[in-house]
Amino acid sequence: MGRARAPGQPVRIAVIGVGLIGGSVALAARERLNASISGFDSSPESLQKAAERGVVDRRSASVEEACSDAEAVFVAVPVGALDVVIGQALSGAPRDCVISDVGSTKREVVAAHRDPRFIGGHPLAGAETAGIEHARADLFEAATWYLTPTADSSGLLYDRLYRLLHDLGARPTAIDADTHDAVLAAVSHLPHVFANVLVTQAAQILKDKQERLPATGPSFRDATRVAGAPSAVWTDIYLSNRDVLIEQLEQTIERLTGVRQALQAADPAQIANWNDAAAEDRRRLLEAELAGGPLVELRVSVPNRPGVIAELALELGRAGVNINDMALYPTPDMSEGVVALWLSGEDSAQRAERLVAARGFHVARV
Amino acid sequence: MGRARAPGQPVRIAVIGVGLIGGSVALAARERLNASISGFDSSPESLQKAAERGVVDRRSASVEEACSDAEAVFVAVPVGALDVVIGQALSGAPRDCVISDVGSTKREVVAAHRDPRFIGGHPLAGAETAGIEHARADLFEAATWYLTPTADSSGLLYDRLYRLLHDLGARPTAIDADTHDAVLAAVSHLPHVFANVLVTQAAQILKDKQERLPATGPSFRDATRVAGAPSAVWTDIYLSNRDVLIEQLEQTIERLTGVRQALQAADPAQIANWNDAAAEDRRRLLEAELAGGPLVELRVSVPNRPGVIAELALELGRAGVNINDMALYPTPDMSEGVVALWLSGEDSAQRAERLVAARGFHVARV
Repeated sequence: MGRARAPGQPVRIAVIGVGLIGGSVALAARERLNASISGFDSSPESLQKAAERGVVDRRSASVEEACSDAEAVFVAVPVGALDVVIGQALSGAPRDCVISDVGSTKREVVAAHRDPRFIGGHPLAGAETAGIEHARADLFEAATWYLTPTADSSGLLYDRLYRLLHDLGARPTAIDADTHDAVLAAVSHLPHVFANVLVTQAAQILKDKQERLPATGPSFRDATRVAGAPSAVWTDIYLSNRDVLIEQLEQTIERLTGVRQALQAADPAQIANWNDAAAEDRRRLLEAELAGGPLVELRVSVPNRPGVIAELALELGRAGVNINDMALYPTPDMSEGVVALWLSGEDSAQRAERLVAARGFHVARV
Repeated sequence: MGRARAPGQPVRIAVIGVGLIGGSVALAARERLNASISGFDSSPESLQKAAERGVVDRRSASVEEACSDAEAVFVAVPVGALDVVIGQALSGAPRDCVISDVGSTKREVVAAHRDPRFIGGHPLAGAETAGIEHARADLFEAATWYLTPTADSSGLLYDRLYRLLHDLGARPTAIDADTHDAVLAAVSHLPHVFANVLVTQAAQILKDKQERLPATGPSFRDATRVAGAPSAVWTDIYLSNRDVLIEQLEQTIERLTGVRQALQAADPAQIANWNDAAAEDRRRLLEAELAGGPLVELRVSVPNRPGVIAELALELGRAGVNINDMALYPTPDMSEGVVALWLSGEDSAQRAERLVAARGFHVARV
């Protein structure tokens, strides 16, 4: 078990894998929280570079050693290596340490590690460049950071992780692992596949026609900006989410086949309807994303049993309630606790009140 | 036949359709060339708005009237109306007037109007917003403006149009209509279809999962930025290029089916190879686009017969020669002329010299 932190002592964080994401977690934690960082990387050169850049305070010889005294561990290795490294972190870390990861797909690792200390994570930041040299303290500023707690997760450790990420500048958001992988397939993995296909097809046609890429303005460049993202990262992502991705690819092939048929029918109304529907979908997506309002604070009394915080966060997330911030205050005897929720807008607040009350918890406005 | 322009008199331009593109042509011509603009629009309200904004000098009652005294006509109406309106412009315009359009597809109109005065055009600018209220004088600054001359086109009028567009700040680039439509399908029409499909599919999945669009950073937003572009414009574009678009859709469906199979095979090497190929394609496309170098000026003596300028421009374009600027200087008896070409980079200059010499024309460096 890790030693307790004396007042004024820096928070102790272990970072496993000091690339772009791990390095940025370390930099943000040092800069914003004055944290003490122990680091490990399977590449001694990367670890040395990180130490030279002042990203880590201590270089560890193993995952277990890096985690041995940590209050929080971030596993920031490629998706294909997550399973093994999370296992090492769990075996090396103290009993009251929270372990999270930053992988782009979540079902596999969450299913493999039902330890109350492990809470899956995925920051939506920094996919474009890789390597410690691009790490920066503000990488997660205002970025969504998905967390995938389960009924097995410790509420106290979830709260610690949530607060830590919030203090790093991110916006932690609870989501279940299945939903995460389906949503990310739709908004990230599939767009990457499309970008690859578009760029390869355009390259072929331009070559056939002996033309150069015209300065088309932003449309083609935007559509293909993520084409050919690093294979070292993306091969794992595609494969770890392949069942969902295959299903969604089949749906897109059906949709494209529908467009082809509409073009063959040469019916202007059909084309216009299809295009108008896309305009409407886009408008609704962006509106929902921008929804918000003044902050409302609620306090919810909950029994301090495993899973309750996760259930609450997931249920509010599913209902589209916009949680801007949250905090857990356990009672001294740890039998129950108060969860403070800061919600964006009166609408979110009212929905949260109804949902929480429906679960039988006491809720009050502050 | 139109009257000749006395020295110091403003160039007379007709703009048919005073929306975003037509209005911006008018504003740029007024601001940069002190041109006199006669305007027509099938909507009297739009024409009045354009006159009130000072976009046109004279409001005309018909296409023919607007063109009757013009040196150059720009037809800036939706693709579906181009055929009729270009016909009206040709019948109303003087014998020595150049008529062009700004439509996003070129085969149909070019095939329909083999008049030496008509030269198809397509500026790559301003697809996002519509309406005279968004018109601005710098819309075409540094923008590629495709021109599709044919063997029927007047060399003198091509030169006039080229120079005019160059003076409006654009980069006129010759391309044959078939190539134009294939390239634009690959770099614009298909990305628009993909954006629509991505946004509709993501909207469906988010709705099914009761999730909001995550703040994914730029990847999804970039990939879907052009989703649901105005149907009033895009229905015509899709339909006028539907044969090429259908062919390319079939190719993309094949490519996506290939990705699905690679995912089913779960072979990391296959996925990595596919992704690496896309990275390489993207790198080559962007490199080619950015290629350039110091300007080299060549002077080519050519017989002053119909089609020769178009042939030259098209052949150099096909060979990937980067023409930065060109000018035609006819001999006094009009039997032959000198074409000045400014080329980007020594490599382009040498290729141009070889190609021009191979056609039997005399070429000299200045």
